[in-house]
Amino acid sequence: MCTDKNKHDRSRRKFIQQTTVAGAALLLTNPIDMFSQTTGKQAANIKSKGYAARDASGKLSLWEFERRPVGDNDILIEIKYASICHSDIHQMKGDWGPQQYPQVPGHEIVGIVTAIGKNVKKFKVGDRAGVGCMVDSCMQCDSCKRGEEQFCDNGKTLFTYGYPDKSSPSGITQGGYATNIVVRDHFAVHIPDNISFEQAAPLLCAGITTYSPLMKAKFKKGDKVGVAGIGGLGHLAVKLAVSKGAEVYAFTTSADKVNDIKSFGAKEVIIVDDLSKLKPYKGKLDYMISTIPAQYDVAAYAAAVKPGGSYTQVGMPVGFNLTLSNIALATTRVNFNASLIGGIPETQEVIDYCAKNKVVPQIQVIKAEAVNEAWENVVNKKARYRYVIDVKTI
Amino acid sequence: MCTDKNKHDRSRRKFIQQTTVAGAALLLTNPIDMFSQTTGKQAANIKSKGYAARDASGKLSLWEFERRPVGDNDILIEIKYASICHSDIHQMKGDWGPQQYPQVPGHEIVGIVTAIGKNVKKFKVGDRAGVGCMVDSCMQCDSCKRGEEQFCDNGKTLFTYGYPDKSSPSGITQGGYATNIVVRDHFAVHIPDNISFEQAAPLLCAGITTYSPLMKAKFKKGDKVGVAGIGGLGHLAVKLAVSKGAEVYAFTTSADKVNDIKSFGAKEVIIVDDLSKLKPYKGKLDYMISTIPAQYDVAAYAAAVKPGGSYTQVGMPVGFNLTLSNIALATTRVNFNASLIGGIPETQEVIDYCAKNKVVPQIQVIKAEAVNEAWENVVNKKARYRYVIDVKTI
Repeated sequence: MCTDKNKHDRSRRKFIQQTTVAGAALLLTNPIDMFSQTTGKQAANIKSKGYAARDASGKLSLWEFERRPVGDNDILIEIKYASICHSDIHQMKGDWGPQQYPQVPGHEIVGIVTAIGKNVKKFKVGDRAGVGCMVDSCMQCDSCKRGEEQFCDNGKTLFTYGYPDKSSPSGITQGGYATNIVVRDHFAVHIPDNISFEQAAPLLCAGITTYSPLMKAKFKKGDKVGVAGIGGLGHLAVKLAVSKGAEVYAFTTSADKVNDIKSFGAKEVIIVDDLSKLKPYKGKLDYMISTIPAQYDVAAYAAAVKPGGSYTQVGMPVGFNLTLSNIALATTRVNFNASLIGGIPETQEVIDYCAKNKVVPQIQVIKAEAVNEAWENVVNKKARYRYVIDVKTI
Repeated sequence: MCTDKNKHDRSRRKFIQQTTVAGAALLLTNPIDMFSQTTGKQAANIKSKGYAARDASGKLSLWEFERRPVGDNDILIEIKYASICHSDIHQMKGDWGPQQYPQVPGHEIVGIVTAIGKNVKKFKVGDRAGVGCMVDSCMQCDSCKRGEEQFCDNGKTLFTYGYPDKSSPSGITQGGYATNIVVRDHFAVHIPDNISFEQAAPLLCAGITTYSPLMKAKFKKGDKVGVAGIGGLGHLAVKLAVSKGAEVYAFTTSADKVNDIKSFGAKEVIIVDDLSKLKPYKGKLDYMISTIPAQYDVAAYAAAVKPGGSYTQVGMPVGFNLTLSNIALATTRVNFNASLIGGIPETQEVIDYCAKNKVVPQIQVIKAEAVNEAWENVVNKKARYRYVIDVKTI
């Protein structure tokens, strides 16, 4: 079928396919202004500017770098906002292994499509788009075909920053605390009009990472769902579970978060300043998700779930390693599992769901120059609840 | 109803209830010879002799000690055989916390009932009986009533050795590497006539500990079940899973066990001298049980299970602690759980099942004086596959 509209779109796409981007134009707000002449295969790298780690100190500074040219299956996104995930800090500090620097973190990225490759059908210039934790995979294996690209059977899942990437001028993927990003179209999602960019950004990691296991848990309306660790991920887990009809029990170590968490819809907020506070909840919950990104007493929390129930760990501690007491876990009779983001179709699903149902993160928009201070606050549990960098301040 | 047989049994019980045991008679082989006059509440402690740890060296030596008198709900068992579990060694060495010494290990215990308390209906003198990992609990809570006494809601599960026990003259429970044991009747099980004592002994821990999670896994005939670690527990897990119709994949680090394991009915034996040997089995199994009693790469093994499947850890490492990679576990999408022995009704079930279906452990009967050498062999993976102490050699 070829409707008039399709014809129009194709013409427009053809125009865009024949263009590439002049780096200097990237800060302009009108995407149409950004295109210069076609350069075909000789397309130049795209200039970018962002906040990069230079070492494992956990400090970022401004860095000018280059993205690859827009390939046939790529889109270029002019980034509007990028939010801060605790994972950014862990990885830049080398908590999960040695890193190559400079490295730009950020995997909660939203902006406007400003160029597309000749094969791209998913987006057109001017579309609102988001990028999360991965930017490529083999796209051929069963997992990729099933929309679980994060589990690519060929091990080709390419995460958004710090992973070897021959197509990147710096040799590794570079994340979203930057003015733009070039990404394979499949790995970007649409951002609906009825959600703001800054509210959508945290959904790209915090949203999907909590939504995916919550949906797999298949809890019913009125079921008791526990959320441990109420930060960027946890506060969204509370909101999502409440929105899906659960009776939510929130476990936090921060007494000053109680009112906030109740306003998110939690039925009870338990301040776990001592593990004994968990005891009255023994075997009470149908399911529990933990976003705690550090070593902690897993079995003590898991004991709050009914025997036979499940407990999902999504927070990733230093070294990714978690030590648990096997005998204590045996006593809980709870199934422990771990979850890692979600696939692209499910990422689109959570964004559409949140936009439609007004499930949005509680955010603080900051200027780029405040990023180091914000990181310290995240580490010190002072974020309320997600910092979002306004990229026009880079 | 009161049949003649019942009348006879009651008369016999009454006689027994009016007797207690003269400690000096305990080494006699005919139980009827062992009773002297009633002493009521003034009943003397019962003399016993066993192999005890004196410190955390992992060496045992002969020790003469006392058991409590036979209480109203107790039975006295003259022990015939006690088998050696790796847990005995872990606990005596203090691997799971500091211990009180002298302490007699052993929780795979079989023998003949030689006295019963006045309320005892479950056993009569002369019965064949076995004792496993626990000897008491509250018996009032939901878990106890459900026959899951190992999960006593009131925390009153009393394990067979090394646990504080006011009724014990030594202040702690003392295990089965000994000539006798006094135990609450509920915590002993019947040993059917069609299984030998020495073959039944290992079922009291190794049998129930593998049987219980295998049954909970609800695998179907022809399902692929993995067993990791083929020692005392693992070889029984192989035999039980084969007997229940599974296609069994056995993972061992001991190349010289291959022929044995195939003779147990395993379809494939994988020698995991390097973790890369696990890779061809990625996502192949429906379920897996690990008996490895030490730190190991859990996620590498769990990856052999299909996404969504379950993996049960029954081996208990030093400190009970297991460190696992949360991100690697996330990639497997496998539910990790741990299991701890089984309840008394299920212990009776596994013994009856094994007796009926001729599922018996491969054992080596040893004299008591060889216990230290046997322990070294267990630690050095030289046991084939369960050492059973002939208690008449104590």
